[in-house]
Amino acid sequence: MTAQVEVHIQLKPGMLDPQGETLENALAAIGYQGVRGMRVGKWITFEIEADNPDTVEAQVDEMCSRLLANPIIERYEYQVTREAHT
Amino acid sequence: MTAQVEVHIQLKPGMLDPQGETLENALAAIGYQGVRGMRVGKWITFEIEADNPDTVEAQVDEMCSRLLANPIIERYEYQVTREAHT
Repeated sequence: MTAQVEVHIQLKPGMLDPQGETLENALAAIGYQGVRGMRVGKWITFEIEADNPDTVEAQVDEMCSRLLANPIIERYEYQVTREAHT
Repeated sequence: MTAQVEVHIQLKPGMLDPQGETLENALAAIGYQGVRGMRVGKWITFEIEADNPDTVEAQVDEMCSRLLANPIIERYEYQVTREAHT
């Protein structure tokens, strides 16, 4: 079975996001006022081949917490979309 | 009026994504096989204060193409959610 996975990772609320702040300032400098609270996170998409459909979500969660995200400072969400076997 | 904006940016199909490839290899190295086609993009969220609700989407599109994304190599999508005036 192949599943499509989409992961969203963002710094936890309260953590400073210098990249977002820099982009906000850059936008203001070229004339786009009124932008606030910009947060720059990651959007990761991939396919995963799994023997057991029931364990895919647990496996993705583990991949996020162990490697893709840093759970100390980041929060993550994921969607797993199962595909028909081809 | 305040609008919530969410932007997704990803390298265009066909562009090499070395960051995705590296993560894929790193996942395989710690035991997660079967991951394919990993793409690492950006997920940007912010609020925008706008006088004219009708022009917000056009303004966000311009912000994406001029600064947030690189339209030569990246594709972007955005959702604008309008909030009631507070």
